[in-house]
Amino acid sequence: MKPYKIAIAGLGTVGASVIRILQENNASIIARAARPIEVVAVSARDKSRQRNCDLGGALWVDNPLDLAAIEGIDAVVELIGGADGAAYDLCRAALARGVSVVTANKALLAKHGAELAANAEKANAQLFFEAAVAGGIPVIKTVREGLSANHFTVIEGILNGTCNYILTRMAEDGLEFSAALQLAQNQGYAEADPTADIDGHDTAHKLSILAALAFGVRPDVAAVSLEGIRRVSALDLRFAAELKCSIKLLGVARLSAYGLEQRVSPCLVPLASPLGKVNGVLNGVLLRGDAVGGVTLVGRGAGGNPTASAVLGDIIDLARGHKMPPFSVPAGHLKLLQAVPLSHRASCWYLRLQVKDQPGVVADIAALLRDENISIEKLLQHGRSHTTDGPVSVVITTHEINESAIRKATQQIGQLQAVCEEPCLIRLENTEK
Amino acid sequence: MKPYKIAIAGLGTVGASVIRILQENNASIIARAARPIEVVAVSARDKSRQRNCDLGGALWVDNPLDLAAIEGIDAVVELIGGADGAAYDLCRAALARGVSVVTANKALLAKHGAELAANAEKANAQLFFEAAVAGGIPVIKTVREGLSANHFTVIEGILNGTCNYILTRMAEDGLEFSAALQLAQNQGYAEADPTADIDGHDTAHKLSILAALAFGVRPDVAAVSLEGIRRVSALDLRFAAELKCSIKLLGVARLSAYGLEQRVSPCLVPLASPLGKVNGVLNGVLLRGDAVGGVTLVGRGAGGNPTASAVLGDIIDLARGHKMPPFSVPAGHLKLLQAVPLSHRASCWYLRLQVKDQPGVVADIAALLRDENISIEKLLQHGRSHTTDGPVSVVITTHEINESAIRKATQQIGQLQAVCEEPCLIRLENTEK
Repeated sequence: MKPYKIAIAGLGTVGASVIRILQENNASIIARAARPIEVVAVSARDKSRQRNCDLGGALWVDNPLDLAAIEGIDAVVELIGGADGAAYDLCRAALARGVSVVTANKALLAKHGAELAANAEKANAQLFFEAAVAGGIPVIKTVREGLSANHFTVIEGILNGTCNYILTRMAEDGLEFSAALQLAQNQGYAEADPTADIDGHDTAHKLSILAALAFGVRPDVAAVSLEGIRRVSALDLRFAAELKCSIKLLGVARLSAYGLEQRVSPCLVPLASPLGKVNGVLNGVLLRGDAVGGVTLVGRGAGGNPTASAVLGDIIDLARGHKMPPFSVPAGHLKLLQAVPLSHRASCWYLRLQVKDQPGVVADIAALLRDENISIEKLLQHGRSHTTDGPVSVVITTHEINESAIRKATQQIGQLQAVCEEPCLIRLENTEK
Repeated sequence: MKPYKIAIAGLGTVGASVIRILQENNASIIARAARPIEVVAVSARDKSRQRNCDLGGALWVDNPLDLAAIEGIDAVVELIGGADGAAYDLCRAALARGVSVVTANKALLAKHGAELAANAEKANAQLFFEAAVAGGIPVIKTVREGLSANHFTVIEGILNGTCNYILTRMAEDGLEFSAALQLAQNQGYAEADPTADIDGHDTAHKLSILAALAFGVRPDVAAVSLEGIRRVSALDLRFAAELKCSIKLLGVARLSAYGLEQRVSPCLVPLASPLGKVNGVLNGVLLRGDAVGGVTLVGRGAGGNPTASAVLGDIIDLARGHKMPPFSVPAGHLKLLQAVPLSHRASCWYLRLQVKDQPGVVADIAALLRDENISIEKLLQHGRSHTTDGPVSVVITTHEINESAIRKATQQIGQLQAVCEEPCLIRLENTEK
């Protein structure tokens, strides 16, 4: 049968893995796709670089944009990266010619996803992007196809392996954030500039794509409230363990009567809940739909081979002739839902305070919480500090209360004379709910 | 756009849920399928029965076989059940007319899957069966599509919610098997005749379907070694907990140089491994592929709504025009792989013995293990029995050894005069590997 012809732009770890797996698993891929898949052309910045793959007879093209114009090409695989520039230009050029696009580029989709989806539909081409979220875990397919009969209520995920590795090392080895980050950098799990990972931007991109698919909204990364993991301390991970929780950087999208809440923030997660023990570089996603209940997917969220598995899954789907609106519903139907105001973002909370060990402190704190109608669930305080005048930690967990109230109370508590450091406020996310 | 017309045979819990969700989530389903989905006809045994759904204008047909012949029908949804009889006849009749089939019927697929797949291909019709394995968890789609670039090495799953509920109650409440079974029956999780669940037949059906998809073999339930959970005692669950394990009924299919091993058996699973804490009625599946590594899926494996979620996911895929060989590769390509002989089924093992509390017993047991080259990893023995002459439990875990050796040693140990009961031998399955 007629081969399915692809061109690959970008030959980093993922691109090389795509080519290698395509060769190694050739027989079974042909059987499953019901036709050969042929890499007819490639493009990358550095032609001379040593790559762990055999490019075979693929044509080398210097300008990636030219890939879209190759005669008889069925799909372009965009692995360049970046929200704009060559990646964006290539995807637009391909779709304009009716050439389908497979991409792993979450930044691009989070920014231009709705526009590219409209372009794809107009040209009757496909835009597939399983690899853009959670690497090898087929979560896009699960939302878009497997659970397509459901109304989703909440999606939450550990979507960044770098942050999960750092938090796991902090929890298991008692490291402080900076030491754990250094370790992640040494292991090759974190970049020299780790901002995109640890400040939550990467998770926000992925969350906005999942939210678009699940809730039929335009991907809108600006609507995602953002809080990274820099301020989480080893102390918090110890208290979390005492509360039978771990701390995870979660991306959460939740639909309510007040709109769509989208946020990225460190959260205390019960160890017994589906995401509580997803450790190390693993990613995990919990999808909650009205018919199916909760479905949890766990696996490798990054790395050449897992990401290539997702890219190739999309390519095989395309070779099989699968067609679908990129965000599950026609691009023209994608809505913009109101963001939920803080006054309606209810949650339980963990509040850690470093206080002077003197009479009346807890009474003052408790009074400020009461004034905001915040009900204390647990209060942990362990003995005196070792140094004579040093502060002691007081940890309070609350019953459910909205974010405006807890932030207001926390701000006032922070101004108490006896409170020595800025209070550390972390959400308690019960993924069972 | 032209509606996609379906007919539903069988209006039990699942059928009623399909109809209800289709109505309740009508707008989003139309948007995702890009066309309305219309139930044009239904058939069930008892027309007068009260059902928790509105059949709308659907035609009532007394003989389910007639559904296949309805003018303009696109797909028949078979929810009758049973490996043969009306379910089988209806699927054959529909496929013969080029009408696609969606079914939740694992027994049917395990027995006639290869034949029905060939029929579907011949008629250019589709045979989809997401609901046949693990209820609402889209594991069929994950194997067939999401991970289609992978060579799979092992698939293992907790595929029967009834057994998992029983084992969870035994572990958490200290119940014996018979009391936990009774509880499951009272809760409606187990049938009056629980044989199909607790003796592993249901898991074997599902495993043979997953193995067919992952390894490109004909579904062959006769190739599955079978051991149920009747012989697991509360004592074993206590010892398992001491070994930081739970006991799960696992279906395991593993490819090796010696062929394809397919088995259903109770296994000790480390609590820290992906399936170790999948409790209650939940199902969980671990898929291991060469590119992706391990992917774990967890969710509700049964029940009207989760199963209907899977059935409707298939229907929406069909309405979108998706086409695929039912077992991922053309039916003619499905192989019969050799079963792995016991002498090459290596595993670690848990062996519990009830022995008389007298000198030399452990020496005799250890000698018999040594004679088969079996190396002991741990040995647990706790004090004297309460009753003066009662037996004491000795638990031994072994390093990896093949099944023939451990079975031979166990048989000989069972004949020792000091061993009072038939030894209890359970696999130690490390799902991390």
